[in-house]
Amino acid sequence: MNILILGGGGFIGKRLAKALLEQGGVTGGELTYLKLVDIAFPDDLPQDPRLTCVAADFSDEAVMRKSLQDKPDVIFHLAAIVSGEAEKNFDLGMKINFHASLQLLELCRSMSLHPRIVFASSCAVFGGDVKKVITDDTSPKPRSSYGTQKAMVELLMNDYSRRGFVDARSLRLPTIAVRPGKPNAATSSFLSSIIREPLNGKNASYPVAPENAFWILSPSRVIQNFIHAANIDAKLLGDDRIINLPGLTVTVKEMMESLEKITNPGVTKLITYEPDAFLQSIVLTWPPHFDTQRAKQLGFVNDHSMEEIIRSYIQEEGISI
Amino acid sequence: MNILILGGGGFIGKRLAKALLEQGGVTGGELTYLKLVDIAFPDDLPQDPRLTCVAADFSDEAVMRKSLQDKPDVIFHLAAIVSGEAEKNFDLGMKINFHASLQLLELCRSMSLHPRIVFASSCAVFGGDVKKVITDDTSPKPRSSYGTQKAMVELLMNDYSRRGFVDARSLRLPTIAVRPGKPNAATSSFLSSIIREPLNGKNASYPVAPENAFWILSPSRVIQNFIHAANIDAKLLGDDRIINLPGLTVTVKEMMESLEKITNPGVTKLITYEPDAFLQSIVLTWPPHFDTQRAKQLGFVNDHSMEEIIRSYIQEEGISI
Repeated sequence: MNILILGGGGFIGKRLAKALLEQGGVTGGELTYLKLVDIAFPDDLPQDPRLTCVAADFSDEAVMRKSLQDKPDVIFHLAAIVSGEAEKNFDLGMKINFHASLQLLELCRSMSLHPRIVFASSCAVFGGDVKKVITDDTSPKPRSSYGTQKAMVELLMNDYSRRGFVDARSLRLPTIAVRPGKPNAATSSFLSSIIREPLNGKNASYPVAPENAFWILSPSRVIQNFIHAANIDAKLLGDDRIINLPGLTVTVKEMMESLEKITNPGVTKLITYEPDAFLQSIVLTWPPHFDTQRAKQLGFVNDHSMEEIIRSYIQEEGISI
Repeated sequence: MNILILGGGGFIGKRLAKALLEQGGVTGGELTYLKLVDIAFPDDLPQDPRLTCVAADFSDEAVMRKSLQDKPDVIFHLAAIVSGEAEKNFDLGMKINFHASLQLLELCRSMSLHPRIVFASSCAVFGGDVKKVITDDTSPKPRSSYGTQKAMVELLMNDYSRRGFVDARSLRLPTIAVRPGKPNAATSSFLSSIIREPLNGKNASYPVAPENAFWILSPSRVIQNFIHAANIDAKLLGDDRIINLPGLTVTVKEMMESLEKITNPGVTKLITYEPDAFLQSIVLTWPPHFDTQRAKQLGFVNDHSMEEIIRSYIQEEGISI
C-alpha cells in the first residue's frame, strides 16, 4: 500500500505519518511506501525506510504529476492556507486552497488513478447564526474566503467521486486544540495558545468574550478520524462524501476553568482578554453547536471533556505540572 | 444605466432584454445601453437604438474584458451549458459553467467595476432525498455536474460580494416551463415538450413515471424575478446572496390533466411514456418540495396553478385552441 500526504510537513501531517507508520497503514494493505509533500519539514520526523519527504509546493503541477506517478492508493490532502492568511491574501487562498485542489483532482482523473482521497475540510464552511444547531443537512454559508474555498472543494470531491474519477471523503474539522508549537496565522490559533502558553509559564490572550463557545477536537482524535475515514467502505457513504466531524462545544471561560482545575487556580492570571475586531469578524461566525449524527453512525470519534483534552496534551508533550 | 446580459441570445435572455427595454431598465436609473453577449442570436430581437448584440463566447477572456469596458451597472449572468450536456461533457460544463463564471468575477475585481450581478443558479444544486422539503437552510447536495458547478459559483458570488468586489444575487431557478421553440439538451426539456408539442398537434413523450413531481416556474415569472432581484437593496440580503425562488409543485400527470381541461380530453393521446435511464438518473434527484420563505419575504413571485401557466403560454405564443 502506497500513501501520499499533501501538507505532510505540518503538525497534523507529521502525526498522521507517524500513526500510519506505527499502524502499518490503513485497512486493505500493508504500508510499503509513504510520501509526504510539503514546502517545509520539521526535524523530528520518524526515521523509517518506508518514508520519503518531498520538499515542494503541491500547487506546482509538475511536482504533483511526479508525486502521483507512484499511483498512491490513498491520498490525505491536508495542504492549505489557514483561515486568517486566506482572508488577508485572497489570491493566495484561491490558488492553494481551491485551484491546487482542483488540479489534484484533474491529475487523478487524467492519469486514471482513482485513489481514495481524505480531504481536510473545515467547519468554517458554516457561518451566520451561531445559535443554530448544525445538522448533516445544514447548508454551508461561509463567512470567510477560507470557508468558501473549502466548501467549493467539497463539492468537487463529491462530483469527482460520483463520476468515479476518485473515491473521496471530506471531513469538516472542528478547530484543532491544543496544537503544540507556536501560534500560527489561523484565526483560531488563540484556542490553543490559552492552554499551551500558560502550561509553559508564558502569557496568552484571547480576542473574544470569554462566554463565546467553540467547536473543538484534539489532535489525537483528528488523527484517529483521518485514518478511520480512509478505512470506510465507499458503499456506506453513497454520493455524499462530506462529513461533519464530531467535536466538543466549549467556551473560552470553560477552557480556562479546566486549565485551573488541572494545574492551579492562579494559572489564568497569565491569560488576558485582548479584543481583536479582525479575529472576531471571522471566528464569531463559526457555529459551535452541532448534531453530528451521521459521523457518529459511521464511527467517527470526539473528546469527552476539556480536561481530557488538556491532560492528553500534557501527556503527549511530556509537560510536568 | 448600462446593463449587460450574458447568454442574452437564449430564450430567457431575449425575453429579459425585451422586458428591460420596455420598462426602461431597473430601479436606480434609466436604461441607456443594453448589451447582449451570446454565441448566437435569434432573428426576432427587438429593434431598439439602446440595444447592442455581441456574437461571441463569454468564456473568452478578451471578449469579456471588452464587454466590461463600458462598465455595466447590472450584469445578468444567464450563460450556461445545460444539465444534460454538462453531464455528458464534463470539461465543457466546467469551462463554461464554472471557470468562465469565475473569470467574470475576477475581471470585475481586477477592473474595480463593482457591478450588481444577477446570477442564474438552479434548484439542481439540490439532490438526494426528494421527499424532503427544501428550506432556505437546506444544504445543496448536487447529484449532477451541472448542479455542482452552479453551487460552486453561488459560493464565489457570495464571497466576492462579502469582500465588496461585486454585489451579486444568485437565484436558484425551478425548472422553467413552458419553454417555446424546440426541445433542448436540458434533462428537464420534456416538462415543456409535453405541453408545447400537443398544443401544436405534435407527439411528445416523458421519461419518468407520471406520478413524479417537479418544481416549476413559468418564463414570465422568471423574468419578473430576475428584474426584481436586480432591484433589491443589498442591505436586505446581507452576506447570503443565494435565494431559492418560489415555484409550483406539479406531477407529470397533473400537467397532462391541466392540458386536457384547457384543450380537450383527447389531447393526451399524443403524449407517451418512454422511460429513459439517463434522464431519470438526473431529474429524479431534483427535490420538488420547497418552503421558500425568504424569497417570498423578499417579494419574489410564482405561478398559482398549472392551468395558469398553460394559459399564459397559449396567450404569449398566440396559439388558437
